[in-house]
Amino acid sequence: MSFDLKIKTLALELPEVPKPVGSYVSFVESDSLVFLSGLLPRRGSELIFRGKVGADLSVEQGIQAARLCALNALSVIRGQCGTLDKVGRILRVVGYIQAHNAFTDHPKVLNGASDLFKEVFGEAGLHARSAVGVASLPANAACEIELTFRIR
Amino acid sequence: MSFDLKIKTLALELPEVPKPVGSYVSFVESDSLVFLSGLLPRRGSELIFRGKVGADLSVEQGIQAARLCALNALSVIRGQCGTLDKVGRILRVVGYIQAHNAFTDHPKVLNGASDLFKEVFGEAGLHARSAVGVASLPANAACEIELTFRIR
Amino acid sequence: MSFDLKIKTLALELPEVPKPVGSYVSFVESDSLVFLSGLLPRRGSELIFRGKVGADLSVEQGIQAARLCALNALSVIRGQCGTLDKVGRILRVVGYIQAHNAFTDHPKVLNGASDLFKEVFGEAGLHARSAVGVASLPANAACEIELTFRIR
Repeated sequence: MSFDLKIKTLALELPEVPKPVGSYVSFVESDSLVFLSGLLPRRGSELIFRGKVGADLSVEQGIQAARLCALNALSVIRGQCGTLDKVGRILRVVGYIQAHNAFTDHPKVLNGASDLFKEVFGEAGLHARSAVGVASLPANAACEIELTFRIR
Repeated sequence: MSFDLKIKTLALELPEVPKPVGSYVSFVESDSLVFLSGLLPRRGSELIFRGKVGADLSVEQGIQAARLCALNALSVIRGQCGTLDKVGRILRVVGYIQAHNAFTDHPKVLNGASDLFKEVFGEAGLHARSAVGVASLPANAACEIELTFRIR
Repeated sequence: MSFDLKIKTLALELPEVPKPVGSYVSFVESDSLVFLSGLLPRRGSELIFRGKVGADLSVEQGIQAARLCALNALSVIRGQCGTLDKVGRILRVVGYIQAHNAFTDHPKVLNGASDLFKEVFGEAGLHARSAVGVASLPANAACEIELTFRIR
């Protein structure tokens, strides 16, 4: 099935394509690799999830934040490629979770993003990933996701 | 010399192949690049090194933790490829050290992993790397290592 | 225009090529990709910017620190390749900002590096990037920058 169709079947609504908030671009292609800039849990220019997971935000809110980061990744890809069907394979995801010092459930939070990639891309969405907890993130975002994929 | 033989010569015991603790896979190949998911200082399902380096754990314990992460990387590679001899070159290592706020010896800690790659792979083990200190990691792990290598 | 000439036109002075401070190398090439090791705000063996941005250091000092990291990246590239003209495209930058817990201006700080890449490389300097805040860095450095580029 087409990934664009899959988005419709799942009734997923992609946020507006996020604009870079600094001197960089959202999408860089080199041979078959594409590097995306860090995605925040935004809807357009509005940051939806702020605060530290495990303190200001629950694990469940963290999961929703990670999912929103992933939806923004899809939005960037569709915005650049015109279609999600250019995704050959999601290769690598890094999830930076802005978390309380004693937080330990980063994998659960990052599943919010990973599960979305599986729902949309199936086998092509199975990726390698690292989940880490960081002290601070731009604009007090709850999490930030970096993604590398193979384009076809 | 074969890297598999080298492991035996050095009397290194690889831990059981670590299972992913979330919605991802441990090993993703794309053309000649392989991306591994973040490795923790585990032996099978048991996390061996917990706590913050520079507070709960000494630098020496941090080094051992990083070395154990690296042994898990070898275990993933051998588990997937059947042999370590498919390693063409270790390209890139990122070491996330769960450290006290005022910790400064991250390079020393990460040498625990880097030295192991040199012992096993020789020239092919010489990699680029970044060492950073993070506030929290999954399951209170002392460190997490991400690795990219070229496969042959 | 040649990137080497551009450096002269802009009157930029590259720091001495930084030596690795651990068991790794500064520059690893694989096919057309080059991975650089994390760059610190050093001039030779001297670390110039220490402390946490938003506490010990101002945003403006953070920007200067990020710019110095980027100059060190150029120094590594020129040292290895003999010329900056081997840069085909800056692909990916990660900026780890050692920041106060409540810091939110990471993108502004990282622009210190991104703007330099644009000044020197123009279109070829436009990269994907992630900006994150970390609790600690090697030697109390204010920031660390990781860079991947395409070589030609």
